[in-house]
Amino acid sequence: MLGNVVVGQSGGPTAVINSSVAGVYVQAKKMGAPKVFGMVHGIEGFLDGKLCDLDNYLSDSIGIELLRRTPSAFLGTCRYKMPPIEGHEDVYEKVIRVMEENDIEVMFYIGGNDSMDTVKMLSDYATSKGKKQRFIGVPKTIDNDLPITDHCPGYGSAAKYIATSLKEIIRDNESFGAKKPTVVVVEIMGRHAGWLTAAAALAKSEDCTGVDAIYLPEVDFDFDAFMAKVEELAATRHSVVIAVSEGIHLADGTFVCEVGSGDAAVDAFGHKQLSGSASYLARMIAGKTGLKTRAIEFSTLQRAASHIASKTDADDAYHSGRAAVNAAAEGKTGDMVVLKRISSDPYLCGTDIYDIHEIANVERKVPVEWITEDGCGLKQAFIDYARPLIQGEILPVFVDGTPRHLVMKELFD
Amino acid sequence: MLGNVVVGQSGGPTAVINSSVAGVYVQAKKMGAPKVFGMVHGIEGFLDGKLCDLDNYLSDSIGIELLRRTPSAFLGTCRYKMPPIEGHEDVYEKVIRVMEENDIEVMFYIGGNDSMDTVKMLSDYATSKGKKQRFIGVPKTIDNDLPITDHCPGYGSAAKYIATSLKEIIRDNESFGAKKPTVVVVEIMGRHAGWLTAAAALAKSEDCTGVDAIYLPEVDFDFDAFMAKVEELAATRHSVVIAVSEGIHLADGTFVCEVGSGDAAVDAFGHKQLSGSASYLARMIAGKTGLKTRAIEFSTLQRAASHIASKTDADDAYHSGRAAVNAAAEGKTGDMVVLKRISSDPYLCGTDIYDIHEIANVERKVPVEWITEDGCGLKQAFIDYARPLIQGEILPVFVDGTPRHLVMKELFD
Repeated sequence: MLGNVVVGQSGGPTAVINSSVAGVYVQAKKMGAPKVFGMVHGIEGFLDGKLCDLDNYLSDSIGIELLRRTPSAFLGTCRYKMPPIEGHEDVYEKVIRVMEENDIEVMFYIGGNDSMDTVKMLSDYATSKGKKQRFIGVPKTIDNDLPITDHCPGYGSAAKYIATSLKEIIRDNESFGAKKPTVVVVEIMGRHAGWLTAAAALAKSEDCTGVDAIYLPEVDFDFDAFMAKVEELAATRHSVVIAVSEGIHLADGTFVCEVGSGDAAVDAFGHKQLSGSASYLARMIAGKTGLKTRAIEFSTLQRAASHIASKTDADDAYHSGRAAVNAAAEGKTGDMVVLKRISSDPYLCGTDIYDIHEIANVERKVPVEWITEDGCGLKQAFIDYARPLIQGEILPVFVDGTPRHLVMKELFD
Repeated sequence: MLGNVVVGQSGGPTAVINSSVAGVYVQAKKMGAPKVFGMVHGIEGFLDGKLCDLDNYLSDSIGIELLRRTPSAFLGTCRYKMPPIEGHEDVYEKVIRVMEENDIEVMFYIGGNDSMDTVKMLSDYATSKGKKQRFIGVPKTIDNDLPITDHCPGYGSAAKYIATSLKEIIRDNESFGAKKPTVVVVEIMGRHAGWLTAAAALAKSEDCTGVDAIYLPEVDFDFDAFMAKVEELAATRHSVVIAVSEGIHLADGTFVCEVGSGDAAVDAFGHKQLSGSASYLARMIAGKTGLKTRAIEFSTLQRAASHIASKTDADDAYHSGRAAVNAAAEGKTGDMVVLKRISSDPYLCGTDIYDIHEIANVERKVPVEWITEDGCGLKQAFIDYARPLIQGEILPVFVDGTPRHLVMKELFD
């Protein structure tokens, strides 16, 4: 029998982060949890005592189905970084106190790298102080950069959006019969890890020649080599579509978007806000070649487009939430759920748990052996890894022409 | 009995322009046309004698279904402007000759304003010279700016994409619990007519408060009024999402993106290439208020995203193609098919034909009486007009994770 639990969402949302909330809720209820609370705006809201009772939204299973079709963080999210324990014990005590006040045994925190650091520090604090509260991490990130786990829930849907949208962009661009091609440069998220940009390789299919070049942050960017590639493509093709990561950078570490804009803003975690690489490269190509160019940024759509979510991804997210509850019921703390792929063909994937100390703050990048020798393509090994993750659809419930979402009123209090 | 016919696509593609090709093909075959040719890359390719036999792709009805799910111009498109007849009779004679060589009685040309000008000039030439060849226009434009017709095929699907994507962007933005909102400025196509940007109003629904302000090119843009509105919204809301047309301009006609960049490129029709208004406004807001901002451009996705096409729109496009064939069978020339709305609730819409001289080169804008007094919102009359056009879905055939498209191999010759 599980006591009360709380689930929170943190960091940038994904199209399926709510499926993990659904998994936690369904499994916690199954394991006898009297109350399943949601944190309003993650740990930041929790510190202010902001909770909601998920029974109000999910006790009817149509609520679960709508939740799984709702993009972004249903519970609200935050970009709150826990301070170091030493000298800030009051913050940690506050978390424990809110849990005690609501008889909460376990906290489930759904997030990426920074959020797993929060789980690690909270569980370290509780363990070191002999507190009974437990903390389990549930992986989530479109960036797919958490280690140990085979992949991260959220990635598959973003990859499906990217592959689908690129097929549409390629068809649009190749329909023009101009003698010289328009060069389209598409910018995809991913600061240090190129997983999302690599998903551009999935646009290639029987009915699509795919994107013409892919530039990941795993490979140092070289302007001369890039221009030579563009000119080679432009000389032979009627359409050129190139995918670049927002995080492409020169060998000295300077981001291409910094070269373009001369500056870059910084967020609460000290990460540079990267944007504008495609726009800069498109202007550069136009200036140097006279070709017509277009820059496209997928921006937040790649993480929010639940209307084209992957069923495989949504299921992995759901089962990750359920597995977290099962781990909690076994008394675990300071662990994160990981996905363990049993087979790619057919795709079979189970879950396991892993010590969060080995996970938090470690970034996993695209293996260099999966990148083609010329540095601007992906090998079959990547396709074999990623293609199963975009299979299947979880179709929206359309009401009056647009997809219906589930909305938590506490977000607007 | 109809003889051979040819169908071509012109201008910027839409998500349903291929449904009009399907309509022409199906109805022409039904009326006994021995051959239905496709122009490869519109009139530009036709002048080079580039034709394909559509039986090769569409004689099996699964081809028709795939065609209706294929974005962009299946036949290829062009941005070719016919020269004035006087002094360029050779160009017109060339068109007639290619038609004669292939025993083509009627040309169907699917396009927007500039393309209807092509139909007008070709039919004028043929009539004045006593030629028997006939020319019928089929409306197509996401811009929805053709006159006489109730609406243009292509608009409904773009509007559905815009409304759906904005709901996703709004949910993404409002999930963050920051004390100060992030201001997202979304740029939508539409040079002079604000129909597409107005579709942002359709994001508002029972589960979504909608975008916070909408700026159309029908209203002169004022930087001070804009900033006052942004500051008013930012003071009271946790999320601010604003939609602006790429064509917003100051009272003196200067485009906002020109203020931002200092210049604007020009295309083959002499239209300025507009892009960058959202980016400029987002930078301005950040600079003046210190708020976090984000600029998003839907770019070509709004015209290419067939995976979220409107069934109503696809059907209107299909029936427009069929109606064009029926008009041809009645001996018409120099006409364009128009959509005639019989009722909005329930939505009932028929077709008619109309003299193309009254249509070509006339731009229809959003009526000022549908715009709210403050100049940054749409009244219910617009919703009543546009909401029926985004109803229903024409779901993709997913193969290996992405939507399958029909591809014409002649495009790549």
